[in-house]
Amino acid sequence: MATAAAFENLNTAGVEGAQDPESLTEPLLSHQRSRSSISNSTSQVALVGADVCPIESLDYEIAENDFFKEDWRTRGRNQMIQYIFMKWSLCFLIGLIVGLIGFLNNLAVENIAGTKFVVTSNMMLANKFGMAFLSFSIPNLVLTLFASIVTATVAPVAAGSGIPEVKAYLNGVDAPGILSFRTLVIKLSEGLREYVNLDRVVGFKITQLLLTLIIGSISAVSSSLLVGKAGPMVHTGACVASLLGQGGSKKYGLTWKWLRFFKNDRDRRDFVTCGSAAGIAAAFRAPVGGLLFAIEEMASWWRSALLWRAFFTTAIVAILLRAFIDICKSGKCGLFGTGGLIMYDVYSADASYHLADVPLVLLLGVVGGILGSLYNFLLDKVLRIYNFINEKGIAPKIFLACTISILTSCLLFGLPWLASCRPCPSDASEACPTIGRSGNYKKFQCAPGYYNDLASLIFNTNDDAIRNLFSKDTDKEFQHSSMLIFFVTCFSLSVLSYGIVAPAGLFVPAIVTGASYGRFVGMLVGSHSNLNHGLYAVLGAASFLGGSMRMTVSLCVIILELTNNLLLLPMIMLVLLISKTVADAFNGNIYDLIMKAKGFPYLETHVEPYMRQLTVGDVVTAPLQLFHGIEKVGNVVHVLRTTRHNGFPVIDENPLSETPVLYGLILRAHLITLLKKKAFLPTPNPTVNDAFSQFSAVDFAKRGSGNGDKIEDIKLSEEEMEMYVDLHPFANASPYTVVETMSLAKALILFREVGLRHLLVIPKISNGSPVMGILTRHDFMPEHILALNPLLARSRWKRLRIRFPPSLKPF
Amino acid sequence: MATAAAFENLNTAGVEGAQDPESLTEPLLSHQRSRSSISNSTSQVALVGADVCPIESLDYEIAENDFFKEDWRTRGRNQMIQYIFMKWSLCFLIGLIVGLIGFLNNLAVENIAGTKFVVTSNMMLANKFGMAFLSFSIPNLVLTLFASIVTATVAPVAAGSGIPEVKAYLNGVDAPGILSFRTLVIKLSEGLREYVNLDRVVGFKITQLLLTLIIGSISAVSSSLLVGKAGPMVHTGACVASLLGQGGSKKYGLTWKWLRFFKNDRDRRDFVTCGSAAGIAAAFRAPVGGLLFAIEEMASWWRSALLWRAFFTTAIVAILLRAFIDICKSGKCGLFGTGGLIMYDVYSADASYHLADVPLVLLLGVVGGILGSLYNFLLDKVLRIYNFINEKGIAPKIFLACTISILTSCLLFGLPWLASCRPCPSDASEACPTIGRSGNYKKFQCAPGYYNDLASLIFNTNDDAIRNLFSKDTDKEFQHSSMLIFFVTCFSLSVLSYGIVAPAGLFVPAIVTGASYGRFVGMLVGSHSNLNHGLYAVLGAASFLGGSMRMTVSLCVIILELTNNLLLLPMIMLVLLISKTVADAFNGNIYDLIMKAKGFPYLETHVEPYMRQLTVGDVVTAPLQLFHGIEKVGNVVHVLRTTRHNGFPVIDENPLSETPVLYGLILRAHLITLLKKKAFLPTPNPTVNDAFSQFSAVDFAKRGSGNGDKIEDIKLSEEEMEMYVDLHPFANASPYTVVETMSLAKALILFREVGLRHLLVIPKISNGSPVMGILTRHDFMPEHILALNPLLARSRWKRLRIRFPPSLKPF
Repeated sequence: MATAAAFENLNTAGVEGAQDPESLTEPLLSHQRSRSSISNSTSQVALVGADVCPIESLDYEIAENDFFKEDWRTRGRNQMIQYIFMKWSLCFLIGLIVGLIGFLNNLAVENIAGTKFVVTSNMMLANKFGMAFLSFSIPNLVLTLFASIVTATVAPVAAGSGIPEVKAYLNGVDAPGILSFRTLVIKLSEGLREYVNLDRVVGFKITQLLLTLIIGSISAVSSSLLVGKAGPMVHTGACVASLLGQGGSKKYGLTWKWLRFFKNDRDRRDFVTCGSAAGIAAAFRAPVGGLLFAIEEMASWWRSALLWRAFFTTAIVAILLRAFIDICKSGKCGLFGTGGLIMYDVYSADASYHLADVPLVLLLGVVGGILGSLYNFLLDKVLRIYNFINEKGIAPKIFLACTISILTSCLLFGLPWLASCRPCPSDASEACPTIGRSGNYKKFQCAPGYYNDLASLIFNTNDDAIRNLFSKDTDKEFQHSSMLIFFVTCFSLSVLSYGIVAPAGLFVPAIVTGASYGRFVGMLVGSHSNLNHGLYAVLGAASFLGGSMRMTVSLCVIILELTNNLLLLPMIMLVLLISKTVADAFNGNIYDLIMKAKGFPYLETHVEPYMRQLTVGDVVTAPLQLFHGIEKVGNVVHVLRTTRHNGFPVIDENPLSETPVLYGLILRAHLITLLKKKAFLPTPNPTVNDAFSQFSAVDFAKRGSGNGDKIEDIKLSEEEMEMYVDLHPFANASPYTVVETMSLAKALILFREVGLRHLLVIPKISNGSPVMGILTRHDFMPEHILALNPLLARSRWKRLRIRFPPSLKPF
Repeated sequence: MATAAAFENLNTAGVEGAQDPESLTEPLLSHQRSRSSISNSTSQVALVGADVCPIESLDYEIAENDFFKEDWRTRGRNQMIQYIFMKWSLCFLIGLIVGLIGFLNNLAVENIAGTKFVVTSNMMLANKFGMAFLSFSIPNLVLTLFASIVTATVAPVAAGSGIPEVKAYLNGVDAPGILSFRTLVIKLSEGLREYVNLDRVVGFKITQLLLTLIIGSISAVSSSLLVGKAGPMVHTGACVASLLGQGGSKKYGLTWKWLRFFKNDRDRRDFVTCGSAAGIAAAFRAPVGGLLFAIEEMASWWRSALLWRAFFTTAIVAILLRAFIDICKSGKCGLFGTGGLIMYDVYSADASYHLADVPLVLLLGVVGGILGSLYNFLLDKVLRIYNFINEKGIAPKIFLACTISILTSCLLFGLPWLASCRPCPSDASEACPTIGRSGNYKKFQCAPGYYNDLASLIFNTNDDAIRNLFSKDTDKEFQHSSMLIFFVTCFSLSVLSYGIVAPAGLFVPAIVTGASYGRFVGMLVGSHSNLNHGLYAVLGAASFLGGSMRMTVSLCVIILELTNNLLLLPMIMLVLLISKTVADAFNGNIYDLIMKAKGFPYLETHVEPYMRQLTVGDVVTAPLQLFHGIEKVGNVVHVLRTTRHNGFPVIDENPLSETPVLYGLILRAHLITLLKKKAFLPTPNPTVNDAFSQFSAVDFAKRGSGNGDKIEDIKLSEEEMEMYVDLHPFANASPYTVVETMSLAKALILFREVGLRHLLVIPKISNGSPVMGILTRHDFMPEHILALNPLLARSRWKRLRIRFPPSLKPF
């Protein structure tokens, strides 16, 4: 029941900061109950990756305590310049490293997979078909085995696309495993604990996830599995950015002092955004597309200055890749080098199409949208089934991956035998038949002068298959049956391959599936259209991507940068619009579905209609743990030990009235720092404030996630427990507050736009306590609200909510 | 002293909502004093366009009064669907109309200017040089005269680029003339009042600005002035969106009932954003570039749902333009039709460049940045000089425009005589010499077989000149001297032409200037580089645009969509980064400079360092006008008449304590509605609440800007003045509040991110009043803060502020 425990963990994590009595006494049960009663689809299964660490929230609020103010007052001009300089240098470094990793990834994949295909083709030429199958399937199996073992043992979080994890991080969800390389090794206990020196592995945890992503992605893609590299590259980019942004790990002496400026969540968020933009830029050599992808899909907060920094990062990636490709053109990179800067160049000066083609393109968009949403639906279901296998332990996980690899090898090698050999066209623009790894006309088992059209697609790397599908002047190359078989194979394999325990992107599978669908439609239409089949394939890829990923401008630019066909732009825009609209009527964006299945508490931008009916007073739960300005140490310790909250209001006596006044909000991390340094007072009377002599602002900077101290680690004597502590200098004296009568919708706007972790609710008329409670991310989750208001769940708003697909939400 | 009055108006406007005693007694003087004492550069001169209307702020906060809540409670499913449907239909309409206007604009310009050049060339061929000059300069003069008369008399706000106005609007600055077509006719008094039936003109004010923009832009661009069409197209797009979004004008029976959903600032902001994206998309046939331009440069608030709607709008524009171009290809559009969907197509499959070219490209970026910032500096200065002329009245304005037109004609016709005739190359890829309007080798005055290279550039439409500059395989076509003359001419003319009273964009002049600079550098480098001169021109245009407009990703995509040269992308990114960085060291973005000169209180995203040192309590000014929950009508009327504030806190007695409690915030517009309907109580005791029978939510919906009633229009009897009014149902019961100890920086984040007009400041310890004051946009303006804290202005922060260019600001 490893996952059951993990699932409880998740639920506990969900209540962090929320202060309701139930959760204090039996948090796991009560929340498990309330959740499952309302949303059985999202909470029953916690998928791979989520089953490791407790989830926390990031905090983008400026904690304005006395140290922060002092720090700003004394900050000199040189420090400011250093700060700016550091930001830009870090972005430069991120771009450089991610670009390099992206290049190495491409280089390795092209060479490993290419060599495999060359060897197999040579066997085929010698009619040694059995040997050929073995020389194809055994390397595939070994590579898959390698990728899955590395992923399963070293960094299970690296499995899957990684985009949902990074997206959740950028929304403020901090599941430490996502980016911070912590506690991943806990899972090693199942079977490997004895064999590995745990301490040593923990010592190198910083690079674990990164290495897993890089090695795992190269192996998985090279092993002819239908998985992409874009998702893992985004995850890699985010990891690099996070690693640099938190300045290394203090515990293992890897801290870089020159990075100490960035000890807060805001700066790290910016770097991770730049890193994920660089990831897509490196994967597709599409710098502008990567940047837009980060804006449109990844980032929850955006501003103009960040746009420029991300542009800088992706520009570095682009320039670096351009330079490497320049070097590789001279043949120094082995089998790598085709494609140039534009991966699937299909430029044609006369992309002639007329109004008459529009209805067909509309149809392409509609069907693409339906297929895309079906893909999302099936993928979600398959992931849930896989999860039952994956939770049994490492061995079944790896077994599953191997099964998929063998299935893939069999299909890829076996299916081309179904296609009949066709004579080479006399006017072919390239060699026919080809024997090596690429080329439009593959020989496979055919006699000289003949080619196997299905093998040209299926017995190939994904990139080469896409190039063949997009190619122009090849309208007569493929048979209807081959294209249909290829489409069905791609669709099924990509659904089956994603959930295995290896880094696996979704972009390339979606492109190859969509392109085969588009080309098939083009072949059905035949000569009734002006567009050549290659352009149909591009439009089909656009429609399938739109139907599955539901992006607009970023997909548009990525497709443009992949294909270099600007004249087709209006058509691509049309197709994307339609497929997204159609697909939104059925279900959500694939990344959101995966994110939901993993149980990340993602905070949406839009407001559900019923949130306008509820006030924050309806949602916030009392009573609440308060501290006085001068508090007994014993009390502080007791509260910290018995709750999991991360923020506590600090109140003071009011000299003018009986009701106390709100002084501010103190964070758990700061309380722990305070207890650790034992800055105690013997009496509850505030003496001369010597806090500045004992602490500096650096003590209150946020560490890398998961690196904070724990209350359990602090040992205090009996006398110390009886002493007092002055919380004033450490409390954020100006937390954001809302009045209890504010609608939940309006409070959500504040919470989301400003990026809060805690939002204090104050009463309209103060009688007794100056603060009613604290709202956290958890309190804005629809599941939580609907559990508190079961009637609402069955009201017309709930119905409305179901009927409106997310993108059509009015707000 | 018309402008002095306007300037005072501006300053009055600046204090709206701010409640300080000085501004009540002598607002104009006190603020003029405080402003000019600290920033003599930005406030002394109010330029054309700003001298018409008072400036107000837009309000994006949800005013949660009882009517709003009731409206939401009773809102049915059908209404919701209608709402969503309407939003999308409006975006569709905006795209359709803006696309159509863009096409008509292009069509008209190409035909008018083209005909002019054909006629003149024919005269030249017949050696009638005097007649040729007249047939060139007289149409130019007539067109300029027409454009300037229309602009000066009908809609002075239409002068200039329009982008700064729309940007200010999207930031929340509502100078009614910008988009709302109101009171523009006030200025007619100077000389024209007698000749025009004022009422009739006001009756048609909705279309005034639009028509002025369209006609004015066509005339100005056709008259060979060095002005662009992109800015006016953005302004046009914003106007179309605003017009549709506010559902027409109620006064003149032009209200469209089906648009009544959009009676608030948030929805209108979204439409105007879509409209401005459509503007650039239509001007450059660059749908993705237009969208990104709206994100990067125009919008102050952005969210994912809006991205999709803007994408939809620009897609409509793109599809429409593509369809029109398809029709025009068959020659039905007169002289229009060259260029296709990509205006300056310079695709080359082998854009070969190597690492060795990088230093040169860096140099190009650095010099481009310097030139761009010099351009901004000179343009700002020239605008200030022009303003002295423009403020003298309509006649001098028009005279100035005519002078520039004559100067332009003389230069364009005269300068080519300086260039020597060159023999046509034998291997020219196109006709040489050409006589008509376009072509790389213009005959001008030369003998047959010879061409005038300077005429090919200068005696041409801007679009054709850019095409010639960007053309490849023409490296030997131009002489160094011709290119230098052309560059200097373009630079000077574009600086001189912008400020005249006609719609005038900056994009095309910047492209043509930058391209000539780039090509000149290319010619100097000669054969030392792999890049052809056309590519140098593209890079030069990028560097000059980057240096002047300081955008990154949007310029990158616009250039890409204009030139169709994807392989050059890494180079363009590099150049843009460098030129922006260099130029930022000298001054600001051109649009920001113009916006500042016009006096718009633009709220920046980034926080100035000294804002961290000040608390909101330091800035907010007491005393303040408060209302009680049940207030005497006479008091309300008195306060509304004697102040200009737009929001008033409503307080109630506290049953538990002596200090009153804050109930909420009531808006001026709502108070006026209340007074107008005379919903009074005879006694100060709250009776049964019958407010719902008298009012509906529609009464509190915001009208189109400038259409609200005024307190002066409301007449009340003596008895009515003695009655009471219950403000509770009408007050926003949950305004956003901050505590007085919050730093200004932190409050600004809330104010800016949530888009507020009023932010209530509450005391830490309530003694007496529950609210200390109200912060408005004005209170966050650096001029205001530094005027309140003169010491700060001379502190190291001020120095820091000067040294750091805006883009290098740490936050």
